Amino acid sequence: MDGKTVKHMVSAIPEMLKQHDAQFFVMYASSKNANFYYATRFKIPDPAFYMIGDDGTDLLVVHDMEKRRAERESKVKEIASLKDLGFYELLKEKKNPSDALCQTLFELIRTHGGRKVLVPPDFPSFLSFYFKERMSVEVVENPFSKLRAVKKGEEILEIRRTSEGIIRSLEYALKLLDSKSGMKCEELRNEIELFLFKEGFIAEETIVSSGLLSADPHEIGRGEIEDHVIIDIFPRSKESNYHSDFTRTVILRKNPEIDEMLDAVIEAKNKAISLIRDGILAKEIHHAVCDVLEERGYTTLRSKASEGFIHSTGHGVGLEIHEEPRIFENEDVIKKGMVFTVEPGLYYKKIGGVRVEDTVLVKQKGCEVLTSYKDYVTLER
Amino acid sequence: MDGKTVKHMVSAIPEMLKQHDAQFFVMYASSKNANFYYATRFKIPDPAFYMIGDDGTDLLVVHDMEKRRAERESKVKEIASLKDLGFYELLKEKKNPSDALCQTLFELIRTHGGRKVLVPPDFPSFLSFYFKERMSVEVVENPFSKLRAVKKGEEILEIRRTSEGIIRSLEYALKLLDSKSGMKCEELRNEIELFLFKEGFIAEETIVSSGLLSADPHEIGRGEIEDHVIIDIFPRSKESNYHSDFTRTVILRKNPEIDEMLDAVIEAKNKAISLIRDGILAKEIHHAVCDVLEERGYTTLRSKASEGFIHSTGHGVGLEIHEEPRIFENEDVIKKGMVFTVEPGLYYKKIGGVRVEDTVLVKQKGCEVLTSYKDYVTLER
Repeated sequence: MDGKTVKHMVSAIPEMLKQHDAQFFVMYASSKNANFYYATRFKIPDPAFYMIGDDGTDLLVVHDMEKRRAERESKVKEIASLKDLGFYELLKEKKNPSDALCQTLFELIRTHGGRKVLVPPDFPSFLSFYFKERMSVEVVENPFSKLRAVKKGEEILEIRRTSEGIIRSLEYALKLLDSKSGMKCEELRNEIELFLFKEGFIAEETIVSSGLLSADPHEIGRGEIEDHVIIDIFPRSKESNYHSDFTRTVILRKNPEIDEMLDAVIEAKNKAISLIRDGILAKEIHHAVCDVLEERGYTTLRSKASEGFIHSTGHGVGLEIHEEPRIFENEDVIKKGMVFTVEPGLYYKKIGGVRVEDTVLVKQKGCEVLTSYKDYVTLER
Repeated sequence: MDGKTVKHMVSAIPEMLKQHDAQFFVMYASSKNANFYYATRFKIPDPAFYMIGDDGTDLLVVHDMEKRRAERESKVKEIASLKDLGFYELLKEKKNPSDALCQTLFELIRTHGGRKVLVPPDFPSFLSFYFKERMSVEVVENPFSKLRAVKKGEEILEIRRTSEGIIRSLEYALKLLDSKSGMKCEELRNEIELFLFKEGFIAEETIVSSGLLSADPHEIGRGEIEDHVIIDIFPRSKESNYHSDFTRTVILRKNPEIDEMLDAVIEAKNKAISLIRDGILAKEIHHAVCDVLEERGYTTLRSKASEGFIHSTGHGVGLEIHEEPRIFENEDVIKKGMVFTVEPGLYYKKIGGVRVEDTVLVKQKGCEVLTSYKDYVTLER
């Protein structure tokens, strides 16, 4: 992403600052935090401080030894090291690194004219409590979460690459399943993850879940592969950190109950996908899924069922595997450029579970399925 | 780890609660947070709420769909779902999931008799601000960070396994370097990481850094492998999440300046290792390293140098790659069972950098090097 794009994206922030009568929005996080990484494009293992202001401030504070790398790699306009800010003198005086850090950062904000700062929900309490005793602090939704929901060209390209890797890994898994009998869930998971790693993706906790265990949507699966298996693959690119997410339920031996359930979730998924376009509400997509499943006689969360369709319809996908928008009963307006999953599933303790899932890119009129693959997958002979 | 061990470990928490006149210590995090994972032994991708109290409370709050899995997998005594706690009724009333969550958790604490809670430094501000308006909240160091610093038998076994994987991966890398000419840093990094992945470890940002770029200790390296290369490998086990950390500087063609620097850091490392035992202070280890390097005429952080030895001597290793204890100018008392790195390095912009690093386990009298391997590695013919 070039500097111009970043500048364009952060134009939402001055508006937010004005609305809250604040001078700065600040974050304290490592690059494991997707919002921090998105704002700075700087990979850093330990937390660093970032502030952005209505006066044009765009400042990253790092340890001395990260300064040169930050100047080289990050997208932030100005880099300061803790040494530059007098941290080590304060540390000598205070002895306590946490106190010295709080005071260093507070004085940085004050010398920039800050009287009120906005912080994201996950801003650490050790800093927010220190700040709150000395100036006004308000928790706001992280504006970068919203900005991240609508993907730019280069981000879409990255999610497309990850999606293509996923499809190749499923094809590889199906070949293995077809050629080797007696494979266990653990073994197939390892094979899929190794295949993806070789292609530059990291997949962990890949779901390969069979039998009655598959009735628990978050069970990653273990033991024998029985009559059907849910394969849910959601890697990220090692290079870019962009994810994609995809699920198919593979039929190895026909079972009428599972087959009917699978048919219903496929219909629900495709119904939802047919509705997605710029301007639709998240809840309309979710209710379309519930409608199809309920018409088929299955229970859903809408009637507070504890079996049947017991999770949301989907979630945004990008630097995080779960991000905005959420596709549930919420009022979020779906916009062109958003990327999210549609993943209806049905789960019954005495039967097992099924799920199908695609990641889609929202267009002006309609959407594009980024994980295009046939819905009904069988290895039955 | 069995339940008994967990019970033993958390005995520090009642004392802390008493000292602060508080009823509960609480966390809100996912299992990416090592303290949360250590306390609960529950792998969960999205944040969950954990509270531990002086009245024997040991309670994990998860989404409904995670409840069964939490009961099965986590070490926590009691599991409640958001549904159990009336979250969905509140959500209907409030519309805002964040407000509904804050109120649900606040009422949970209140009905358990909480008037004051302790939270860790990284506790999210959206919750701590809500709590602080309704009861007493104090930020304390996370007691699990200190507990985690001293490793139990099973943890040591896991770090040992990761250490052994690292040594095998270095041996593999050396074979490749020796047999293939013209290899680039990127290619060697990929080979090392793929080797480790196949063995059940995840390594990312593995440092393979050569030439003048190696003068930046956090540069992961790119381009040609020149006369020397720093290989710094710090994977975690996919299964257990335990890390280890190890560095060797490999000489491909002798250069007197690099060779002298390497000789100095090897001496500094071994001097430090010879001192490590139960009861030594972290700063004694750090100063021993600085003494050796300064006697050899190199500059260190002690004299505020910006070149030479410009980072700390080491850090604890476990569920996180950087954890307690820190081996720097601090007063931390080193205890039997701690596992940390000793990693002196020297970095000069016009020459390049060198570093050697071992991960050690502290014993009553002395320490054991878990990443045992020769210090001076050369492929020169």
